[in-house]
Amino acid sequence: MKMLNEKLNWRYATKAMDPAKIVPRAKLDAILQAINLAPTSSGLQPFEVFVVTNAEIRAKIRDAAWNQAQITDSTYLLVFAAWDNYTAERIDAVVNQTHAERGTPMEMLNAYYDNLKASYLPRAAEVNYDHAARQAYIALGVGLVAAAFEEVDATPMEGFNPDAVDEILGLRAKGLRSVSLMPLGYRAAEGDWLNGAKKVRKPMSELVTEIA
Amino acid sequence: MKMLNEKLNWRYATKAMDPAKIVPRAKLDAILQAINLAPTSSGLQPFEVFVVTNAEIRAKIRDAAWNQAQITDSTYLLVFAAWDNYTAERIDAVVNQTHAERGTPMEMLNAYYDNLKASYLPRAAEVNYDHAARQAYIALGVGLVAAAFEEVDATPMEGFNPDAVDEILGLRAKGLRSVSLMPLGYRAAEGDWLNGAKKVRKPMSELVTEIA
Repeated sequence: MKMLNEKLNWRYATKAMDPAKIVPRAKLDAILQAINLAPTSSGLQPFEVFVVTNAEIRAKIRDAAWNQAQITDSTYLLVFAAWDNYTAERIDAVVNQTHAERGTPMEMLNAYYDNLKASYLPRAAEVNYDHAARQAYIALGVGLVAAAFEEVDATPMEGFNPDAVDEILGLRAKGLRSVSLMPLGYRAAEGDWLNGAKKVRKPMSELVTEIA
Repeated sequence: MKMLNEKLNWRYATKAMDPAKIVPRAKLDAILQAINLAPTSSGLQPFEVFVVTNAEIRAKIRDAAWNQAQITDSTYLLVFAAWDNYTAERIDAVVNQTHAERGTPMEMLNAYYDNLKASYLPRAAEVNYDHAARQAYIALGVGLVAAAFEEVDATPMEGFNPDAVDEILGLRAKGLRSVSLMPLGYRAAEGDWLNGAKKVRKPMSELVTEIA
């Protein structure tokens, strides 16, 4: 099926968005649903997503992100925020939900997740945060594909001051740390120097090594 | 377009694969192409992918990965390996390729990437490796969606000894560190306890917070 790669070739890190073009709510919902379906290590889903439309807060985030205009010109600004640490309470919530929804016996779940707790809980918060952030990046990848499928433009962004964004959104008090921004909108074709530029990627021979 | 989320609901972390069912080469190629199209920070693509079919090497990796059978029962075992550090040489290669293929003037590229080097190169290798690993996880997410589109089963795996896998594949000598495994194959429906189990995900209200 070529369609996926056609969509991935269509998308690009949009540099200018047209604020007059509004992404329909149904498309946002489909993208958020895909993000929720992203697989994560042991099913923990150790992140949350903030959808910012408030103009004042977006202006503040833009100030903390090198003044990148997509932050305020997009229809929705998504902020991916990873757990700042793993805790017994957070893991137990997943165990209990899995038991309730899937009917897995608690003995079986505890055998697995007690082992996980024994590994995760003694680790430094920073190690657990890094691990949680990687899981958020799986969802970021899935979300970018979902946006392309909805023919919505998206710009994955790391170029921001995470401490400032955490402060603006009150994330630390919620045990969260911002890891990536993802404005969703529509490209302002004529104002975007990157629109239409050749996509540059490694030759497959440099990306892939076969061991046969 | 519902199709993407239908595919994401179809996929699951396959626990048992049927070694007699072979994934066609064209499907592998499409999945690898999608992985190559995944966006990464500043376009650096700081990772490589190893496609392991060699039986002896797969058996060694299985030994280093809690004896998980998908490692040898899949058609292809993908190993995602992130750069162990950023270097001027690695960044220059991206600059030169972008200039050659996209025609961006060197002055413009240098203005951006010299700034990037000033930020990245003084950092500890571990910080840069963590950043590179996150980019590999974007590609892991894209690769998992691509596998679902090809109706190929895939199992993202972190449950392995990365030092052992680095040793088996000689990754450290190449400046790489293994971050994730992804067997590609076909589910052994009757032998897989997770096949057909309800997909457990956070309620949308817990995943998403709107700031309007």
